[in-house]
Amino acid sequence: MAKKKPASLSCVTMTELVLPNDTNTLSNLMGGRLLHWMDIVSAIAAQKHSNRIVVTASVDNVSFSKPIPLGSVVTLNARVTRSFNSSIEVYIEVWAENIPSGEKIYSNTAFFTFVAVDQSSKPIDVNEVIPETDKEKELYDGALRRRQLRLVLAKRMKPEDANELKSLFKLD
Amino acid sequence: MAKKKPASLSCVTMTELVLPNDTNTLSNLMGGRLLHWMDIVSAIAAQKHSNRIVVTASVDNVSFSKPIPLGSVVTLNARVTRSFNSSIEVYIEVWAENIPSGEKIYSNTAFFTFVAVDQSSKPIDVNEVIPETDKEKELYDGALRRRQLRLVLAKRMKPEDANELKSLFKLD
Amino acid sequence: MAKKKPASLSCVTMTELVLPNDTNTLSNLMGGRLLHWMDIVSAIAAQKHSNRIVVTASVDNVSFSKPIPLGSVVTLNARVTRSFNSSIEVYIEVWAENIPSGEKIYSNTAFFTFVAVDQSSKPIDVNEVIPETDKEKELYDGALRRRQLRLVLAKRMKPEDANELKSLFKLD
Amino acid sequence: MAKKKPASLSCVTMTELVLPNDTNTLSNLMGGRLLHWMDIVSAIAAQKHSNRIVVTASVDNVSFSKPIPLGSVVTLNARVTRSFNSSIEVYIEVWAENIPSGEKIYSNTAFFTFVAVDQSSKPIDVNEVIPETDKEKELYDGALRRRQLRLVLAKRMKPEDANELKSLFKLD
Amino acid sequence: MAKKKPASLSCVTMTELVLPNDTNTLSNLMGGRLLHWMDIVSAIAAQKHSNRIVVTASVDNVSFSKPIPLGSVVTLNARVTRSFNSSIEVYIEVWAENIPSGEKIYSNTAFFTFVAVDQSSKPIDVNEVIPETDKEKELYDGALRRRQLRLVLAKRMKPEDANELKSLFKLD
Amino acid sequence: MAKKKPASLSCVTMTELVLPNDTNTLSNLMGGRLLHWMDIVSAIAAQKHSNRIVVTASVDNVSFSKPIPLGSVVTLNARVTRSFNSSIEVYIEVWAENIPSGEKIYSNTAFFTFVAVDQSSKPIDVNEVIPETDKEKELYDGALRRRQLRLVLAKRMKPEDANELKSLFKLD
Repeated sequence: MAKKKPASLSCVTMTELVLPNDTNTLSNLMGGRLLHWMDIVSAIAAQKHSNRIVVTASVDNVSFSKPIPLGSVVTLNARVTRSFNSSIEVYIEVWAENIPSGEKIYSNTAFFTFVAVDQSSKPIDVNEVIPETDKEKELYDGALRRRQLRLVLAKRMKPEDANELKSLFKLD
Repeated sequence: MAKKKPASLSCVTMTELVLPNDTNTLSNLMGGRLLHWMDIVSAIAAQKHSNRIVVTASVDNVSFSKPIPLGSVVTLNARVTRSFNSSIEVYIEVWAENIPSGEKIYSNTAFFTFVAVDQSSKPIDVNEVIPETDKEKELYDGALRRRQLRLVLAKRMKPEDANELKSLFKLD
Repeated sequence: MAKKKPASLSCVTMTELVLPNDTNTLSNLMGGRLLHWMDIVSAIAAQKHSNRIVVTASVDNVSFSKPIPLGSVVTLNARVTRSFNSSIEVYIEVWAENIPSGEKIYSNTAFFTFVAVDQSSKPIDVNEVIPETDKEKELYDGALRRRQLRLVLAKRMKPEDANELKSLFKLD
Repeated sequence: MAKKKPASLSCVTMTELVLPNDTNTLSNLMGGRLLHWMDIVSAIAAQKHSNRIVVTASVDNVSFSKPIPLGSVVTLNARVTRSFNSSIEVYIEVWAENIPSGEKIYSNTAFFTFVAVDQSSKPIDVNEVIPETDKEKELYDGALRRRQLRLVLAKRMKPEDANELKSLFKLD
Repeated sequence: MAKKKPASLSCVTMTELVLPNDTNTLSNLMGGRLLHWMDIVSAIAAQKHSNRIVVTASVDNVSFSKPIPLGSVVTLNARVTRSFNSSIEVYIEVWAENIPSGEKIYSNTAFFTFVAVDQSSKPIDVNEVIPETDKEKELYDGALRRRQLRLVLAKRMKPEDANELKSLFKLD
Repeated sequence: MAKKKPASLSCVTMTELVLPNDTNTLSNLMGGRLLHWMDIVSAIAAQKHSNRIVVTASVDNVSFSKPIPLGSVVTLNARVTRSFNSSIEVYIEVWAENIPSGEKIYSNTAFFTFVAVDQSSKPIDVNEVIPETDKEKELYDGALRRRQLRLVLAKRMKPEDANELKSLFKLD
């Protein structure tokens, strides 16, 4: 029987400085570099939850809203939301801070999904997640719907079978 | 009036070698590094189409299926699918090749969306895309549906207004 | 008159993954890479405290005790301890975590000192530090002694004038 | 019985160009990058002296005096000063050169200490150092005092037992 | 008996973005970085032809004509020209594109030579090259002359024995 | 009238450690990385001679003979040989050292040529080179022949006009 572990034990905070090679010709952080950091911080959160090596299985739709200029301090917070057998969903929030002005802006959020594997790369079941705060419970509850969307988009589930997902479109 | 430009003129091929720092503890390519490469190659495709500086606006759901080991040659092909005002959608296909064995595996596909901007970072309209091959036409036709899904997920469109998207769920 | 700001507002947590290029031929983290990370995290703490650009003025004696193997997760916590005019001392604690085993080891601590500067690189006075917890008060109280040791070692203060420092040797 | 080897046989010169990613927002070299280079050049000197793998044990107090701008050529010279069983102290001098002007400025000096280890990471005794020049003899003579300061600061020696160190404060 | 394989099967296209760390103080791409990229793309072409690990044996004279500014897109095309036992010659063409202006300039060409090796690093014979286009045939025909020049320059062939090479100087 | 400056004043020594990302799948240093280092060290030598910004004009034929394994210490020595108007030829010698064994192997030599430019990127005449040692005189004397070979290979000189070069083939 799977053990259970609070979501909060997987929390990871990562802080990065936006250096010249991370920026585009407008001197703003490139989206791809941010995705790279998001993958690393969420992989660490998934590893802390599972005490296993994890491999990235998918990233959900990510939107980038505001430019993050050179020299900014980027803070990424990650924590697991829910697990399904060997699969672990991680929620990441990103802020950017302009140090001289002290202004801190919300950048974006994302969901990365990982598969826990053993040394021979075979999937292995992981601890269940115990959500404690209201936010954690909300993320836990939405996890099934997001999972169905992922499976539909990857053509591994028929849209008409995605019962949870349909509710997003208020169709049932 | 916007000019039109064939999708094929935006084609970019990028080849990368998987080096030690790109890999996880199982010596396979980390998902975040691949996302970083996908962002760069698709930004170049969007720039070739628009002759403008572009900034990453979003990445759609990406799934990673097979591990790509250290030393592999990763080939990324990107081309624009369709534009909407200042917004440009790019389609990327990724292959990985184990050189000694000569085995080439399909890794994954993705859609990145960019916004073309002028020197003061303000959005600016771009060329329309002319799809020519069957594949290009199929990608062009699906672009509106993917755009609606992005807007719904970013909470900038109500699900009930996403007419194109509903067809995905065969509900209308 | 200088403003005062609690030490806790400057807290920064940085998380890094030990990748192959960070390691020596025994596959353990190189000391120089860790010093580099310590400088970045403490510079960010000093910037958060001062809302100024800061430049590294000195690093105190740092000891490295236990090897940190490839694949470890390194967590660095930094917070300011005390300021002297334009000079800011930052305290950093480093832990290393072996994710599969869940073992977390204390690695080391260090003190980095920064000078806050204006856009023309001239030193500028910064906020004073308000220590709140017992640990913060202890760090605040020891700051003068460490400052004297730095000045003596840099030959900018005569040993016999370093009154605070002498107490370290229980000589007065 | 340990062999003896002249200090000069361990000399290493390293030259680095200050590139954009090495600089802070004032376009000057970051202290942490310089510490990283100092660790590498001194580790090589310790390896040349001992013909062993070495691991960084400590870095003594380092002060950074003058800013080193982007595009500068940084020259680091390292040589061993003295060994104590498996421990090797290395002295590093750093210069920075502004090539177009031909101006060469002295940046700083530092002492790094390494432990020589065998393939199973166990400390192993190394060659003794033969100082030949006046400068080498002065560095050799000061090594014991610096070693005591390190041990006191690391709380591995009582200040009152640090006989050599006390002389620094002219107290005996 | 060695197998034969068309030159076109070894074609590799690599696309790189010129980032700040790739540039000199005039913000143009450094020659050394371009040589690094040329080595990688041509090594991949040689591996695709031989299905072997390859090691760089030599690079022929390379001239750099026009500066390539920061933010440019550099495209490298590589294909094998001819093989001699375990040795494989690769031809590389480099273009640079200023995306906003759409201007694409020819940068340079080069020849890299590789040796195919087995797992114990011993040279091993490779497929012969079948040239198909006129350009491929011209490159194939010139390969022997270039090979003699390499051997003469490496002092492994006497100039007077380099019959093919002499024709370059129209002396026979 | 151009000033004259001894070759020895341009000497630069660079030391690099072979890290995992510098190696191929056999764990030996990649040729392209070594070329990158050679370009940097020789550019510094050319800058020291000319007190000007320099840009890489060409690299002569380089051969790589022996594999340099991971963890090796690579030492590069560069010095100018001769100048022609705004053009500066630099000679580089490369050694690789296996530290635990103490074995130092000669790797290769190369000639890089640079053009000195002013702030608007226009070529500008530089100091003449004074060769002092026998080795420097030999390098100085061969410079014209190498220059003719470069011009012939770049199709900027007719082979029949390359009088110095012909002597290489003992034809006159």
